[in-house]
Amino acid sequence: MKRWIYADNAATTKLDVDAFAAMEPFLIEQYGNASQPYAFSRLVKKCIVEAREIIATCIGAEPDEIYFTSGGSESDNWVIKEAAFSDGFKRTTITSQIEHHAVLNACAAIGRLGYPVAYLPVSDEGVVQPEYLAQHIDNNTRLVSVMLANNEIGTIEPVEELAKIAHAHGALFHTDAVQAVGHIPVDVKTLGVDMLSASAHKFNGMKGSGFLYVRKGVELCSLVDGGAQEYGKRAGTENVAAIVAMAIALRKNCKRMEAITRRLHRLEQVVLKRLSSSGIDYRRNGSSNCLPGNINLSFRGVAGEMLLHRLDLKGICISTGSACDSVNTRVSHVIEAIRVPSEYAKGTIRISFGADNTEEDAEAIANALISIIQK
Amino acid sequence: MKRWIYADNAATTKLDVDAFAAMEPFLIEQYGNASQPYAFSRLVKKCIVEAREIIATCIGAEPDEIYFTSGGSESDNWVIKEAAFSDGFKRTTITSQIEHHAVLNACAAIGRLGYPVAYLPVSDEGVVQPEYLAQHIDNNTRLVSVMLANNEIGTIEPVEELAKIAHAHGALFHTDAVQAVGHIPVDVKTLGVDMLSASAHKFNGMKGSGFLYVRKGVELCSLVDGGAQEYGKRAGTENVAAIVAMAIALRKNCKRMEAITRRLHRLEQVVLKRLSSSGIDYRRNGSSNCLPGNINLSFRGVAGEMLLHRLDLKGICISTGSACDSVNTRVSHVIEAIRVPSEYAKGTIRISFGADNTEEDAEAIANALISIIQK
Repeated sequence: MKRWIYADNAATTKLDVDAFAAMEPFLIEQYGNASQPYAFSRLVKKCIVEAREIIATCIGAEPDEIYFTSGGSESDNWVIKEAAFSDGFKRTTITSQIEHHAVLNACAAIGRLGYPVAYLPVSDEGVVQPEYLAQHIDNNTRLVSVMLANNEIGTIEPVEELAKIAHAHGALFHTDAVQAVGHIPVDVKTLGVDMLSASAHKFNGMKGSGFLYVRKGVELCSLVDGGAQEYGKRAGTENVAAIVAMAIALRKNCKRMEAITRRLHRLEQVVLKRLSSSGIDYRRNGSSNCLPGNINLSFRGVAGEMLLHRLDLKGICISTGSACDSVNTRVSHVIEAIRVPSEYAKGTIRISFGADNTEEDAEAIANALISIIQK
Repeated sequence: MKRWIYADNAATTKLDVDAFAAMEPFLIEQYGNASQPYAFSRLVKKCIVEAREIIATCIGAEPDEIYFTSGGSESDNWVIKEAAFSDGFKRTTITSQIEHHAVLNACAAIGRLGYPVAYLPVSDEGVVQPEYLAQHIDNNTRLVSVMLANNEIGTIEPVEELAKIAHAHGALFHTDAVQAVGHIPVDVKTLGVDMLSASAHKFNGMKGSGFLYVRKGVELCSLVDGGAQEYGKRAGTENVAAIVAMAIALRKNCKRMEAITRRLHRLEQVVLKRLSSSGIDYRRNGSSNCLPGNINLSFRGVAGEMLLHRLDLKGICISTGSACDSVNTRVSHVIEAIRVPSEYAKGTIRISFGADNTEEDAEAIANALISIIQK
């Protein structure tokens, strides 16, 4: 097979080999339904219990605060819609302008049903300033939902402060941590969040699985009603193989996080130094407090789509925006919200390194960019 | 590993070996995000397109009428909730008393939000009589949802007639075909349904995946909003491995359906003949028009839970009710709705044979039942 340089780890990651080894038995001989009481399902049930414990430990939660879902989009929709639907008073949901579409479009959906939604602006670095929230929130706010780290520019949000403001006004606080979990330290108690969304395939688990943390005591109706799975809160036969893979991948990522983070920062520097010394006119978007390995760049007078396709021809995978946005060629809502000047905005790409990337990858990407732009 | 006699195929099935072989590359080297435009994701995208075509062909639909979901429960919730939420008039949803909890509990959820729901009774064989529907329906009905085959007793419902009645009153018609797809011939055009739910792991695909058929022209809001996946109707990074497995498993099941059906009917006869000649007092529940391999039995004066556990000790896996219900010991809502006499009702078990079962399995189960009950 062709050798690719894959630097789109914010879109999806490679399934971890240990995670695959752990899940494989549950794809083959251990196919029992976890909800059945017979001995044939005993190992399945046991491994789901263990997976829940592992995941809870990784984010500082209790096992019975972890609800397995089909991924980040479902987790986000669950919170946004059911927090609204379980509120007889139709109070306001506050979110930010730079959320993932799973949050933004779920907010639009409840908006169409008559539930009010407010969208906070962000700073030029993509930070939801706590004072913005403090100005907008009142006691008629039901939920505040702000992501832990942005999927396009990598900016890490001041969730701890934002959650405190929400709670001071009696509102619930949710964070979409899809880009953060497995990549930066996440502790739900330190963050003080009531709910947190995560997606397995963003941290080397399988696609089609994720979880929602819901703090004990928070009442949330179900998005998927039915059987008694997930403490009666999320119906559907447990996807045991994917659940086991998710736990193994997350634990491994958390264990090696410091080492990987150091390496990812080195890779970032390799790219940025090369670009800077080339004399190309570019800017790096986002905040210095950002996800390791995420480099969002805007090149003046260049089309991001062209860069993506020319890099593709060289075997390099990067993104022009968020993965879900790549069918559109317009400037992404995030790049708009952080007010990237128009002469740069259309030349925006996202390089997102992962655990498998090397310094050679970083050099190859920088060199390819320079040769495409300077040609 | 211990040799089990697995006869709980209505709860879940073993992943098909060809389906596993087809999905494996997408768990390992082909990990690209299907929504990304680069060449690395080309095969992933292509295989999703092919999977959609295969599945559409298997049920007589068009590819762009198939929406991949995380399973039957999600598909059911999507229809029940969004048909209601997309109806500004809050018209009535009509369903039956013997639906799966995914439908019943989704109906309860919209009921709590003020959307009216009516529950049709069934005959002693578990049939939703078309005249029941004709009596209850009026032009204020938004949706009729009746399953294609019941998960506990296997009764196949007269969906074609029911859909005609719904349409004559301007209502949409949905069928939960989770137990039917891959097991009996299903053609959405012959059935005349507007929407149909299916779950991969019930037909030898992977857990955590399924689909919803939505007839072209039917407007349905999304349950999971977000990215542009699934024609903008179901967000979330495509679970390509599971999607590919689902298509391969369904095509294979459809191809061998006649042969398997004949064999399953033979296995049913083996069990029933043995039981009858033993003199044990039992009844078979459901209709003669039922899912192949499904045998729902009630034994007079016996506890179903006891049977399940004693069979388990002999290495035999069967169910006392629907999988999702097995944490409860009370008589299931289906057994209640078909008015099984109380002296039999608590002694109810479901044997559900699958493609892998043999005549020896059927004999072993019958002999085990006889020895447990007559001891």
